Formats: sequence, structure tokens, C-alpha cells
Amino acid sequence: MKLYELVGKDVEQGFSPYVWRTKMALKHKGLDFETVPLIFSEIPETLSFANSKTVPVLKDGDNVIADSWDIATYLEDTYPDRPSLFGGARALSHFANMTTLIDLVVPLFSALVSDIFEIIDDRDVALWRETREGRLGMTMEEAKEVQGENLAKFRNKLWAYNRTLKTQDYFCGDAPAYVDYIMYGIFQWAKAASPLKVLEEDEPLYAWRARMDGLFDGYGKTLCQRV
Amino acid sequence: MKLYELVGKDVEQGFSPYVWRTKMALKHKGLDFETVPLIFSEIPETLSFANSKTVPVLKDGDNVIADSWDIATYLEDTYPDRPSLFGGARALSHFANMTTLIDLVVPLFSALVSDIFEIIDDRDVALWRETREGRLGMTMEEAKEVQGENLAKFRNKLWAYNRTLKTQDYFCGDAPAYVDYIMYGIFQWAKAASPLKVLEEDEPLYAWRARMDGLFDGYGKTLCQRV
Repeated sequence: MKLYELVGKDVEQGFSPYVWRTKMALKHKGLDFETVPLIFSEIPETLSFANSKTVPVLKDGDNVIADSWDIATYLEDTYPDRPSLFGGARALSHFANMTTLIDLVVPLFSALVSDIFEIIDDRDVALWRETREGRLGMTMEEAKEVQGENLAKFRNKLWAYNRTLKTQDYFCGDAPAYVDYIMYGIFQWAKAASPLKVLEEDEPLYAWRARMDGLFDGYGKTLCQRV
Repeated sequence: MKLYELVGKDVEQGFSPYVWRTKMALKHKGLDFETVPLIFSEIPETLSFANSKTVPVLKDGDNVIADSWDIATYLEDTYPDRPSLFGGARALSHFANMTTLIDLVVPLFSALVSDIFEIIDDRDVALWRETREGRLGMTMEEAKEVQGENLAKFRNKLWAYNRTLKTQDYFCGDAPAYVDYIMYGIFQWAKAASPLKVLEEDEPLYAWRARMDGLFDGYGKTLCQRV
């Protein structure tokens, strides 16, 4: 299998939160894969074979699947004898896939964007400014100035997630499954891109993340923090 | 079984979103129950036997359970041969119980509060003003003035919920289960308390709510809209 992913200057350090979900899902299923690193500006042309403008894209023999959620359902349905990604909860996993996008990914993007700008490949700088500054309505330099505020807004969102983990080890219960990988991908994105401290030691998410770091022989720990 | 619930001037019309979850859960399990209507100011004393200051409280023989989530898990564990409330997804149902509280219940409360004020029992008016105006930092009259803005803020939250329902009939999948009752309770609360149009005909949540209205011989429809 080939997994197409997004990288910056450091081609070993993929930082997309969506690719991280897929990486953890592949590990959960015990499937081997190699990654194909792409910078932003390479994605449209390289992934045109998959009719996709975003990562992840998975190539599994003759099958080509784009979109992290579609990849998750593909893996579950194609490899049913491997450990289940959803347990009995595919519909609620899909629900969490949508709610966490709006609740966490969008506000965290605002906090991270000026740091991501510093790790992207030099060839991507112009494209990043054009697309991201337009979306945000501000320059990267302006985004850096309000980073602290945006981090605080993101952290204000964490109550429900911390509260959930007070009485269960993983979002999916006693053992991790796909919604844990959705959540983990969000924090891996932050870890890869930014020196910001997004979690405090005394909150349940912090201990949960440490448990997630230990899965699959510490696979998530192969991603080093930037600072 | 006795279910203690919150009512206003109209004792037939319980409006708590948390009680509605429990009512639907009891129906889902096929369990008979009678309701005990309470006004706000009666709750602390009446429910002291349950060590609770909020509804719902369920009395099932000698068992007394407070808190809608604890009631749901009690029903699931005590009546395992009845239809399951969680399927294989108890942990993710608990997760949704927490995230929807912050994402939907809190902002909708701001939009509904001045209308709820008009349906509560006359004996509750002073207590409601004291507790709710304090929490909001504004009077009921001021809350009424910003109701439109607060409704818009609530409606802005609905994207992920509508998007989920584009590809599945219920939040829990092909058939309703507890997370659907959590969501339904939120909209029953709005329906009972307010003439506000919280859903538009062309959004997936609207059709989902109509399906929910039809469950258990139209049980949810026994709640009439105020206007």
C-alpha cells in the first residue's frame, strides 16, 4: 500500500491531521504501507489519478481511495478479519468525524497556521499565503500576533473531551479505535507544526495522548516535536 | 417506574431536554412509567431523597437514579434483554453526551431562556430570575432582545449534525438509539418552550426530527408546540 501524505521542509515529518488518522488506522489493522511525501504545490497534479486535491490518498493494489473517512470505511470493509476500527459504532464514529472537524480542527488551525507557515517547503510559501491568508482574512504575521488568543479559544473547547476521559481510558472505550485516531491526529498536527503547549499535564487529554503515543511500539512518537 | 420531571404552567408539558432523553430511552426499552411533574422551586426538596438538585430522577422499585446519563446506563445494564440503547457504542455515546452539551445545549439555552421564562409556573419566576439572570449576566428582557442573534449562533453550530445525517438516517446509524434521544431532547426543549423556528425544512435535521416524532406511536408528538 502507498499512502500519499503532506510534508514540509522535513520530508520525514508528515503533519496533516487527516493523514495521521489514516496512519493510525493502518497500524490498527496491522497493514504495512509506505508513504509518498508531497509538498502542498505537488498535490493537485500528483493526486489527479485519485481525483483528489487533498491528502490522504491510499493506493491499495488497484484500489485508490481519497478522504480519510472513506479510507477508514474502505479498510474496515476490505479487511474485516483484522481488528475493527469502529466496533459497533461506525455511525457514531462518522458523527464524531464531523463534530470534531468544526469543534477542534477549525479553531486549532487558526492557532497553528503561522507556525505551519514556517515548516512548509520554500516552494509552497506563495501558494500557502495566497490560499490561507485569503481564508483567514489576515496575513501570517497578523495570525502570529493573535496566536495566543486563538490557542485560548481552542483550549476552551476541550472541556467536553477532558470530561469524557475522566471515566473512560479512550474515546472509544477500554481500547483505542478510530475516533481516538481522529483525536490523536489533531494533536499530532499541533506537535509537528508548533512549539505551542496545547495540553496541560493535569488534564485527562494529556494522559490519554501519552497512552496513544505508546501504541504500535510508539509509532506516533516517531514524529518529533519541532522544538 | 416513576420519572420526576420539570414542568411549567402546563403540567402536561415537560420541557427539560434531559428528561426527554430519559422518556425516549424508557420507550426504547419498552418500559412503562408514570411521570411526576415538578416546578423548579419544588425540585430541591422533592428530590432530596435522590440526593439530586436536577431532573430527571428515576425511581424503579427500590432503585433511585439521578442524572440522565446515569439513568441510561442503569436501564441498559438492568434490562439487557430489551433493545440496546448503545449498541456497541456506549463510550462514544458518552462522548456525544458531553460534546453536545457544550456545542448545542449551552448556546440554545441562551436563545430559549426568555421564552422559557414565559412558560414557567408563576411561583418559579423569582427563582428563575435570580439563578438564570445571574448565569447569563443579563435580565430576561435583555435576553429577549438578543434572542435572534443567539438563535443564529446556535444555528451556526448545526453544520456537522446536518452533514452527518446526509449519509445516515440516524446519528446511531440505520435505527435510532441513545444519541438520537440526546439530540431529540434538545429539539423537544425548543419546541416546548419557544415559537422560534430552530430548523429549516430543507436541512437533514428537519427530516430526521420528523422521523423521531414518529417513533413509539408518535410519542414525541404528544408535546405540543407553544404557538
